[in-house]
Amino acid sequence: MTARVLLPWSDLAVPAELEVAYYDGTGTPPGDLDGIEFYVLPYDAGPEPPKLIPRLPALKAVQALSAGVDNLLPLIPDGVRLANGRGLHDLSVAEHALALVLAAQRDLPRWFRQQPAGSWEREHTRSLADCRVLLVGYGSIGRAIERYLNAGEAEVVPVASRAREGVHGIDELPDLLPTADIVILVLPDNPGTRGLIGERELAALPQDALVVNVGRGTAIDTDALTTAVAEGRVRAALDVVDPEPLPSDHPLWTLPGSIITPHVAGGSDSFYPRAKRLVEEQLARFAKGQPLVNLVG
Amino acid sequence: MTARVLLPWSDLAVPAELEVAYYDGTGTPPGDLDGIEFYVLPYDAGPEPPKLIPRLPALKAVQALSAGVDNLLPLIPDGVRLANGRGLHDLSVAEHALALVLAAQRDLPRWFRQQPAGSWEREHTRSLADCRVLLVGYGSIGRAIERYLNAGEAEVVPVASRAREGVHGIDELPDLLPTADIVILVLPDNPGTRGLIGERELAALPQDALVVNVGRGTAIDTDALTTAVAEGRVRAALDVVDPEPLPSDHPLWTLPGSIITPHVAGGSDSFYPRAKRLVEEQLARFAKGQPLVNLVG
Repeated sequence: MTARVLLPWSDLAVPAELEVAYYDGTGTPPGDLDGIEFYVLPYDAGPEPPKLIPRLPALKAVQALSAGVDNLLPLIPDGVRLANGRGLHDLSVAEHALALVLAAQRDLPRWFRQQPAGSWEREHTRSLADCRVLLVGYGSIGRAIERYLNAGEAEVVPVASRAREGVHGIDELPDLLPTADIVILVLPDNPGTRGLIGERELAALPQDALVVNVGRGTAIDTDALTTAVAEGRVRAALDVVDPEPLPSDHPLWTLPGSIITPHVAGGSDSFYPRAKRLVEEQLARFAKGQPLVNLVG
Repeated sequence: MTARVLLPWSDLAVPAELEVAYYDGTGTPPGDLDGIEFYVLPYDAGPEPPKLIPRLPALKAVQALSAGVDNLLPLIPDGVRLANGRGLHDLSVAEHALALVLAAQRDLPRWFRQQPAGSWEREHTRSLADCRVLLVGYGSIGRAIERYLNAGEAEVVPVASRAREGVHGIDELPDLLPTADIVILVLPDNPGTRGLIGERELAALPQDALVVNVGRGTAIDTDALTTAVAEGRVRAALDVVDPEPLPSDHPLWTLPGSIITPHVAGGSDSFYPRAKRLVEEQLARFAKGQPLVNLVG
């Protein structure tokens, strides 16, 4: 029997020896799931697509398109390989991080609010150049953000879970926070990152510092941040919050100095060509019996 | 008599042999203007500061802090040197150009509009990565923008008034426009740039292209752009417009796909340390009788 693959897109180059079925995460999955050996999970398509995994008796490999796959691990049967979407989102997230930083520094919310009234009222703004930026989380996304910050002549201070040549350890944060104009968090959710930025850390920041989060919302104590923003001590620009969605009546939505986008950093257009190239490469490897890339565990 | 200098800031390192008077462009200028030999014009302070120039009988040099000084030339007496603020605004303008590009590509106006309602409604957006960007105007600001675009893996196509190695000439625009996802204009106002982007050029752009202007508003035919944006053919992100201020009832203010900031690209915080360093260097040169830098004409 021909090996079957279940894909979210119909415009991929697929080796002739594979038979393709489609499921983009909307509507009903294909009725015939027998013989599906390779399943590419639709990206950012809610809770249904992973539920299909236990219903695929011939399954040999699952390709996720997100970098984090912690939620999938319990669903993967023994002997089934899991590959993640490491790197596919780097540029998209880096772009959005820069968008948040520049929006906050250059007062974009103010100018956009003025537009409906046709107001030409102007004022000089903050800048990104010359700012000292703590980049907390220094994997591939962090390095993509760093390239942008270097282009803008900001001073980048990389911070990772463990110190290494040119990179500070996260245990040095108490000394680093008082020196920061901007803190950008690009951290996964795990026991070591949860609540990393709380009341004490926010109090250590200089007046008017900007806290940006494009990693996972749990890295920040939301209540402590809300208080600090409400008191006008720090500003915030967040693509991720804890909890998500942020309740619609939460004060962070409307406090001056708070910018919130609804977890959209990773999924912009730049993701798709990169994701499709990865899936095509994996399909070619799968058809030839070669090892997959981006394997987890 | 000691040489006197008229400065907009009181926190500069000034050679001991110079006597300092201050005028920041607000309030009344100092009563005693005799002996002022060097005048640093306050930046972006309206029409009053230049009017002081003819009232300075001992004047030897004027330092402007803007890059463009066309409006000052008629006021400069024979024999008085004029230096401009070339380079001081590069980073500030480049940052704002990136802020406009990213705001448009990543739908920031939409997310900011959603904030007051606490709405977590989300959708994937455009990206900057992979976009083909015509960078029209390739001086020091254009190159600062290019560094940002390269960091974001956009494809940069530099265009200058004359073609040279690796740079297209402005006469090639008809061939280049149909290939552009984004056009960024960084042009001075002169007879060669006025109305450069009109009805025909806008029609040559692909559907949904983004037109960004951080140079001078006159490079774009405002009526033609308004029509193209209203018809949903192109998007616009403008820091400069023609005329300025844009009348408060102008349709560009409120058209979907139109972002307007009130000519604030150049004057952010990153300007001041650079401007102060230049003025300190010029004062040192002036005190020693050395030639000034950034001289015009």
